[in-house]
Amino acid sequence: MNNAAIGVFDSGVGGLTCVKELIKLLPNENIVYLGDTARVPYGSKSRETIMSYARQDIEFLKQHNVKMILVACGTVSSVLPAMDIKSDISISGVVEPAVKAACSATKNNRIGVIATSATIKSGIYGKAIRSINPNIKVVGKACPMFVPLVENGYTAPDCVPARYIAQEYLEIMKKEDVDTLILGCTHYPHLTELISDIMGEGVTLVSSGAELAKYALNSLSYSDDTAEREERESLELYCTDSVELFSENVERFLGNNINAQISKCSLKL
Amino acid sequence: MNNAAIGVFDSGVGGLTCVKELIKLLPNENIVYLGDTARVPYGSKSRETIMSYARQDIEFLKQHNVKMILVACGTVSSVLPAMDIKSDISISGVVEPAVKAACSATKNNRIGVIATSATIKSGIYGKAIRSINPNIKVVGKACPMFVPLVENGYTAPDCVPARYIAQEYLEIMKKEDVDTLILGCTHYPHLTELISDIMGEGVTLVSSGAELAKYALNSLSYSDDTAEREERESLELYCTDSVELFSENVERFLGNNINAQISKCSLKL
Repeated sequence: MNNAAIGVFDSGVGGLTCVKELIKLLPNENIVYLGDTARVPYGSKSRETIMSYARQDIEFLKQHNVKMILVACGTVSSVLPAMDIKSDISISGVVEPAVKAACSATKNNRIGVIATSATIKSGIYGKAIRSINPNIKVVGKACPMFVPLVENGYTAPDCVPARYIAQEYLEIMKKEDVDTLILGCTHYPHLTELISDIMGEGVTLVSSGAELAKYALNSLSYSDDTAEREERESLELYCTDSVELFSENVERFLGNNINAQISKCSLKL
Repeated sequence: MNNAAIGVFDSGVGGLTCVKELIKLLPNENIVYLGDTARVPYGSKSRETIMSYARQDIEFLKQHNVKMILVACGTVSSVLPAMDIKSDISISGVVEPAVKAACSATKNNRIGVIATSATIKSGIYGKAIRSINPNIKVVGKACPMFVPLVENGYTAPDCVPARYIAQEYLEIMKKEDVDTLILGCTHYPHLTELISDIMGEGVTLVSSGAELAKYALNSLSYSDDTAEREERESLELYCTDSVELFSENVERFLGNNINAQISKCSLKL
């Protein structure tokens, strides 16, 4: 048993899709979330800058005595192996859980990955999938407009600009006949309905944030590190820009009956 | 005569539209430009965070011994008066030059302003315009999708998503019958053709970055602070994220026959 909280971070609000799953799957675990809203987005920035920000995010969560750190940011997850972090507690990104789920789901051995420019450039999904099954063909596509579309509410399947851009991005996925598509950025689940509609019923969508939450459940159970309490005691959400701006998004991602404590924190801005 | 360089900064690459004008108008002036690409964008962030970043940007340019600082960022310009900066050298934003140009241009006393959320929230354009002529009606509209559209190359007048979103944003401007529209964010001139097409021929578009460059020309001439040389000696461009990512944009904004020195610098990241 381990009553310390689970630490989660993202460049901004996208990682709250992972928190939403954690709340469902692990209703008695305390959670500390950090969104680096003063420097969001990470996905269009350089590898070096992303790593430097991620180190600060991890340090912040460590200071909150968490028992594990979930990197609910596709972009940071893609540079995580190269960061070579020494840590007493486990630090897990979205890549491995998403890749495992996708490799189990695919029937025709053709997996697509959509993510930020930085993630696609890293090539990490291809490497991870081929290490499980070298016969799987991996098709990657950077979708830099998806985050602004989601953040500005252009998500409905009949939304003209969202549909046009999504069709443009997903054309290669249809052409390459993928039967499984990894949503490698934690913002993308907001576009699930639209993406499903374009890709068609036969294609399985894998939400990287949700898979990471499932991984946390399995990992804590396996190592007997679950909390010894009936109900969650605290859900602490930290942001690096204003609490007011962040709160609007928290409501949009988690609903408005969430009992969370939202605070501003300073990394090294 | 004053041979020190002109300092210019922006949250990212948008301010290069002002540099482009400076190069044309003041071909013998040295220029030092800073784009805070590691923390871009500013326009969706809080007033407090924007001010804190802007102070660091200004400090950086001061260390380069510039003779004047041009704030080629609509968002920072909108908080500049509230920052109450004590400085030996002049620090000028885009608001005043753009407002003067718009007030001269309007015939029906109806001016529109499009800009980032932070700029529109500040209400600064309304205040500045009414201080010149209280009879002018000012219509403001935040256009948060315009920066990602420009940065991802969705700018052509026949581009479906750009046109759809622009029509949505500009509807109020047509309804309110503005005859002059201030492009209050330095990214927006890339959408000039599209915006003109939607607004119609009778509407004057005022580019805030270009007006700021004209202001610099007038101000240096007036105070006899122009440089004493035939041709520019240096165009130094600094960014806070990788030079590689920045260079691509420099070419897109300034063309590829620009003789510029591009370096990465560190603020307090």
